[in-house]
Amino acid sequence: MSAEQQDIVAPMENASISTGQAEQIVDPWNVQGAVVDGKQVGIDYDRLIAAFGTQPIDNAVLERLERLTGRKPHAFLRRGVFFSHRELNRILDRFEQKKPFYLYTGRGPSSDSMHLGHMIPFIFCQYLQEVFDCPLVIQLTDDEKFLFKPNLKLEECIKFSRQNARDIIACGFIPEKTFIFSNLLHVGGAFYQNVVRISRCITYSASKSTFGFVDSDNVGKSHFVSVQAAPSFSNTFPEIFGTRSDIPCLIPCAIDQDPYFRLTRDVAHKLKYPKPALIHAKFFPALQGPGTKMSASVDSSAIFMTDTQAQIKNKINRHAYSGGGATMELHKEHGGRPEDDIPFQYLSFFLDNDEEISEIEKTYRAGTLSTGELKKRCIEVLQKFVADFQARKAAVTEEILDQYMTPRSMGVDLSAK
Amino acid sequence: MSAEQQDIVAPMENASISTGQAEQIVDPWNVQGAVVDGKQVGIDYDRLIAAFGTQPIDNAVLERLERLTGRKPHAFLRRGVFFSHRELNRILDRFEQKKPFYLYTGRGPSSDSMHLGHMIPFIFCQYLQEVFDCPLVIQLTDDEKFLFKPNLKLEECIKFSRQNARDIIACGFIPEKTFIFSNLLHVGGAFYQNVVRISRCITYSASKSTFGFVDSDNVGKSHFVSVQAAPSFSNTFPEIFGTRSDIPCLIPCAIDQDPYFRLTRDVAHKLKYPKPALIHAKFFPALQGPGTKMSASVDSSAIFMTDTQAQIKNKINRHAYSGGGATMELHKEHGGRPEDDIPFQYLSFFLDNDEEISEIEKTYRAGTLSTGELKKRCIEVLQKFVADFQARKAAVTEEILDQYMTPRSMGVDLSAK
Repeated sequence: MSAEQQDIVAPMENASISTGQAEQIVDPWNVQGAVVDGKQVGIDYDRLIAAFGTQPIDNAVLERLERLTGRKPHAFLRRGVFFSHRELNRILDRFEQKKPFYLYTGRGPSSDSMHLGHMIPFIFCQYLQEVFDCPLVIQLTDDEKFLFKPNLKLEECIKFSRQNARDIIACGFIPEKTFIFSNLLHVGGAFYQNVVRISRCITYSASKSTFGFVDSDNVGKSHFVSVQAAPSFSNTFPEIFGTRSDIPCLIPCAIDQDPYFRLTRDVAHKLKYPKPALIHAKFFPALQGPGTKMSASVDSSAIFMTDTQAQIKNKINRHAYSGGGATMELHKEHGGRPEDDIPFQYLSFFLDNDEEISEIEKTYRAGTLSTGELKKRCIEVLQKFVADFQARKAAVTEEILDQYMTPRSMGVDLSAK
Repeated sequence: MSAEQQDIVAPMENASISTGQAEQIVDPWNVQGAVVDGKQVGIDYDRLIAAFGTQPIDNAVLERLERLTGRKPHAFLRRGVFFSHRELNRILDRFEQKKPFYLYTGRGPSSDSMHLGHMIPFIFCQYLQEVFDCPLVIQLTDDEKFLFKPNLKLEECIKFSRQNARDIIACGFIPEKTFIFSNLLHVGGAFYQNVVRISRCITYSASKSTFGFVDSDNVGKSHFVSVQAAPSFSNTFPEIFGTRSDIPCLIPCAIDQDPYFRLTRDVAHKLKYPKPALIHAKFFPALQGPGTKMSASVDSSAIFMTDTQAQIKNKINRHAYSGGGATMELHKEHGGRPEDDIPFQYLSFFLDNDEEISEIEKTYRAGTLSTGELKKRCIEVLQKFVADFQARKAAVTEEILDQYMTPRSMGVDLSAK
């Protein structure tokens, strides 16, 4: 832990960058691109890197990852979906040295409706777990959803946790090395002890300025960061790591979750725990276009993991924002704009074949590939992804669910330093 | 729950009553009588009743209690040690109607050194449990001590909990109906779920103004009220009460804890849980005199439960503030002031015999009982109390401790409404 970089701990305000007309807003509860000349533009991720003080994922990182794992980096890395990190190299060092580490990610279960955007961190974690062969803990923040959504009942939040866990399991994790837990059911013992340790290190001022709370917010909100921070420390999971508090984790998450982990990294220093490393994803855009993210509460913005093949086709054809020409003639004449085109962007997330993506981009931009043809390919790829997912989910029984949700040993060599 | 009285929820400031020169301060962390003409005076409990909006314990309550239990009320009630309440009559109604209820009290385990003052709520709970034959839950707020005392280690707090539990058990509770728990070890499951429910109902503003926090305090402090509130609700203890959330409790505590339970009663209303009833004790005065309470951190202020017979004798003789005359002659001429006299006050807590107390008071005031004789009687009574306590404590094995600290059924008839 020597020669650690000092995090730039920017207050949330710094993430809202003035762009003349309306600011870009990125915090755990709001994601909205800037408005320039009355038009919503995409999130400026380079500015987020600067404002949050994170590191871009550059070619050197990708090359090292490929060298160490012997596999081409995941499409999410090659395409810049995971675009930023904090101390990823420290985790790669440990992988190289065969020292233990683990992955930690989470989900806020506010409904039974998981959509494509929710899959991004889990698809990526599945890849990381496969190449690293390491434990993965997945926190379902049903307590947070209850605290932040006044209309939800506690029992509903617990039910959503269990329902969401089935979707998560369908992403194909290693059963023996994956622990999925509901905070409302699991917080206690060593976990609660770390929550209390963490909460002693975070002032109300720090929580307030990081997340933008006001004094009329409930006391659970400003305290909740302690609960989201706790799984970053290995002694929170005695069944997996015993009393070892020095095993670091890597947290793949969307960039809006970074404020939680900036505070967590501060706390780690105070508690003499290793700081969690992070790898940050961009947001999965809504059907309506770039500048916001897919939302479970706006039905027409999202492709849900429960959608039928016909619904997927219909949503892409009817709602997906196109970067193509207004008419077939104009498209042939001027070409399309893949960077604005939602079907193209979805393909860049879900179509692994780099040559095909490159060909699509080139021909679409040239106007030789039509919007209809691009949408057709997008529909095929998403239909297959969702159908495969649904088949895997159908195989997740209550017993399998219970296994994933039971704290247990994962065969980590606890003698390895 | 109809026709409930509305609590007067006074902010903490109202408990600090201006008396001209220095205010009386009573909150969970400070107890200090007013300073009048440069002299520390005793706590004005009538003014606390008015400021907090509680009810005095009057003769009607004592007579009803005696009639219902068939026993003379405890000396702490006859002598006004427990002097105030909230809705005690509602609990007596349930006792009369043979409906279930329970007792809840607690202790903040900041050291291994419990003193006579710490015994007051436990001695009284032992009496209440005996006459009511009901379950008792005892919360050891080791998490609170950790959050509020920056120099304590978490492991120490847990150790103090277990050590304090032995002292508590030595007070003689019904083993089958008493559950003692450390928050750091026990919070989780149904307990944590109620903590989250409660924390959603309490704003930071309310916690801040009730307890006097500032924004530079850690987030655990303003949140902690949720943890102290949770045992007020029966579904926090599924092993004892199943899923029943409608079984009310009575909380015997020192009056400085009332702010926690004022907020708890507010929350109960919002959550449709019964409000906890309360019965409040005065503070056990320090050896140095009235106006503050016995403190474990000021060795010469306290008689510890580990003190030897010689130490007790020595402390009373050397440190106990006397209300007697300055000389034997002056004492005989003007008499003593039992109301200022610490040995007399200790006797009024620990000597059950009303006739003897009355005789001591009369003769001391008259000057025929000397300070030396009064101290001698006080020493005898305290020596016996402490010796008996130490003998009972010595019999508390690790196994007995484990039994009390294990959540379990207590044979409550859960079909009784």
